[in-house]
Amino acid sequence: MIHFSRSLTKLIGELKKLPGVGEKTALRLAFHLMRDPENCCALAASLVEIQNSVRFCSICFGITEDDPCCICSGDRDDATICVVEEPQDMLAMERSGAFRGRYHVLHGALSPLGGIMPSNLKIDELMRRLNAGGISEVLIATNFTVEGEATALYLTRLIKPLGIKLTRLAYGIPLGSDLEYVDAATVQKAVEGRNEL
Amino acid sequence: MIHFSRSLTKLIGELKKLPGVGEKTALRLAFHLMRDPENCCALAASLVEIQNSVRFCSICFGITEDDPCCICSGDRDDATICVVEEPQDMLAMERSGAFRGRYHVLHGALSPLGGIMPSNLKIDELMRRLNAGGISEVLIATNFTVEGEATALYLTRLIKPLGIKLTRLAYGIPLGSDLEYVDAATVQKAVEGRNEL
Repeated sequence: MIHFSRSLTKLIGELKKLPGVGEKTALRLAFHLMRDPENCCALAASLVEIQNSVRFCSICFGITEDDPCCICSGDRDDATICVVEEPQDMLAMERSGAFRGRYHVLHGALSPLGGIMPSNLKIDELMRRLNAGGISEVLIATNFTVEGEATALYLTRLIKPLGIKLTRLAYGIPLGSDLEYVDAATVQKAVEGRNEL
Repeated sequence: MIHFSRSLTKLIGELKKLPGVGEKTALRLAFHLMRDPENCCALAASLVEIQNSVRFCSICFGITEDDPCCICSGDRDDATICVVEEPQDMLAMERSGAFRGRYHVLHGALSPLGGIMPSNLKIDELMRRLNAGGISEVLIATNFTVEGEATALYLTRLIKPLGIKLTRLAYGIPLGSDLEYVDAATVQKAVEGRNEL
């Protein structure tokens, strides 16, 4: 590559580290940012700001600026906790509007091959919240992947002895799906979990 | 959307202004950057640096940190100038390794409907370079779009009277193409420009 400028090459290198950004996209973004000083400065300021202001909530480990976060300190159902893998999963749950309890973010899922063991997740912190009492239901909303399912199973074994009701998000056919294109394992789960009309 | 944090919302807003970045990609990039402070800080620093250090070469109007740029001051064929629309087009030409002359960046293409008139482009500057003498060929490498072709035609009319040889990048079938999928207009141009074997 022709070296127009060391700083342009550096910016392209940094952009390429972003997920889903390759050489061509990085180049396009870099040229755009170079031609749009306003966007460029505002983005730089935002990046600095987010490093300084964002932290994890000390109760649920979600993302927040104020500790505890708005959900932990808000008017919610105290007796239900939804366990998710990542802060962005909280966002997906909140968008659905179907859950009115509190959250607990594990910050990952079990993956022995990937070196993610229970001690790497916020599982001890979850158990401390449950042992403190007052929780009647734990909704496990880890991802529907091998790691997410393994984590759900691990949590089930830990939490069941406490006598707390454990639930898992329903498996099934996504809304708007063409049955023809849904994978066999999902159809199987949907048949097993069929509801009476 | 749940407001985890004002600064996260702001960062997502800034990311969404980038070309090809929508709500979902912005969210994914923002969460990635938040979890990777090193990448985040380096990117912010790069963005500030590029605003401070990058400028346009006073001869060719390409991107550079030193004026004149490495191509204008380098050991090149002085008698040939390649005219391109944008600095990134210089990059495409350089990657090909087929051109050893100098460049001139117009910073756009004529688009009367879009309000881009000859005075908005670096055309006067190009004519000044040509009138200064010593140029035997101008290779027009504007894009093969309506605007690029219009610009090429406009430049032809301006430059022809100077008695300088004018060339245009060849039209034709891109390497690796399946003739079946090449558009009719391109095939037509490739037939018209056919070469003897």
